[in-house]
Amino acid sequence: MKMAFQLIFFTFFFTALIFSSLPSNYAHSHYPIDIGPAMVRNLDKEFQDSNTIPGISHITVAGAVLHGFNEIEVWMETAAPGGSTPVHRHACEEVFVVLKGSGTLYVASNASDSDGGKVFPGRPETMHFSVNSTFHVAPDVVHQVLNTDPHQDLHLLVVVSKPPIKVMMYEDWTTPHNEAQLMNPFVWDARYVVADQTSSAQEI
Amino acid sequence: MKMAFQLIFFTFFFTALIFSSLPSNYAHSHYPIDIGPAMVRNLDKEFQDSNTIPGISHITVAGAVLHGFNEIEVWMETAAPGGSTPVHRHACEEVFVVLKGSGTLYVASNASDSDGGKVFPGRPETMHFSVNSTFHVAPDVVHQVLNTDPHQDLHLLVVVSKPPIKVMMYEDWTTPHNEAQLMNPFVWDARYVVADQTSSAQEI
Repeated sequence: MKMAFQLIFFTFFFTALIFSSLPSNYAHSHYPIDIGPAMVRNLDKEFQDSNTIPGISHITVAGAVLHGFNEIEVWMETAAPGGSTPVHRHACEEVFVVLKGSGTLYVASNASDSDGGKVFPGRPETMHFSVNSTFHVAPDVVHQVLNTDPHQDLHLLVVVSKPPIKVMMYEDWTTPHNEAQLMNPFVWDARYVVADQTSSAQEI
Repeated sequence: MKMAFQLIFFTFFFTALIFSSLPSNYAHSHYPIDIGPAMVRNLDKEFQDSNTIPGISHITVAGAVLHGFNEIEVWMETAAPGGSTPVHRHACEEVFVVLKGSGTLYVASNASDSDGGKVFPGRPETMHFSVNSTFHVAPDVVHQVLNTDPHQDLHLLVVVSKPPIKVMMYEDWTTPHNEAQLMNPFVWDARYVVADQTSSAQEI
């Protein structure tokens, strides 16, 4: 009777041990979403962040913090009429493909405009874009993307290099370079970085 | 006095930093298409290569050899029904977004399948994808993308890192790893590399 109890206990104990040790070493990566060496995912079912930047809805299609990509990051962005990104710059390359709608790209015309000892991005150049076009912004060039179409959403696919992105944010086009604020992690990554730290703390 | 010196030094340092961070090819590049620090381009008017890989039509949206990108490359691909990429691998990250149609991704299931001393990619796993999905292939994983829909074109946006791409080509899924052929430059870049060498030679 005692032996049967021991047998049940050890069977339970070893089974639990095997199951608890398997996932962390074998099946799961340490990123919030484990996509393995290859995977197909339905974009309709991916998390869409619509609250962080007003007027912008964001899906991280392929992310460094979220999925473990090292060299590229891909986003799907929807901007409502009137919606815009902040005025900002970053040290990575960035390419946009316009899937739907139209809008305006503002780009710093002259990185060395100065006034009273302060250096500004300069009065931006205006470039219009519409569906089935592409545009890019070179590293460290201050820019802003706006949906200037009053009637329809702007749907963009965005690619950046050297993820996770580290963004220098300008309040507006009159903000001098030395008053730009570093945002790292960027808003879309922040929730995962915080979540990761929390789960690490819980493990300790 | 010391404070004034510090102020001058930091103003000089910051200004120098901004100028040095500007793209070196700000006005003129030595690439076949000079896109400058920012530009909007209509994809309908970009060159479309429909002859190099049977069944595949290719646009280099953002290219290393073509435009001077250093960290990312973006392609727009259309595969006719039955069209497919070669069986291949590369050391870069790759992300696909399915804009139209559906198809099949073949991915090497086991990089170490061996038979009589030769090592093969292994019998591929099959993954189906359709419009508004994304898929990725990790570096060095052998793969093939096929339009398996008999009725409609497959329209893909493709992103790769570390351009220009250097591809290891397999004749088919039974080709051993040591018989894969390096293709560098890849077919879509080859025309520009040759053109570039010719123009360099003419300059000399």
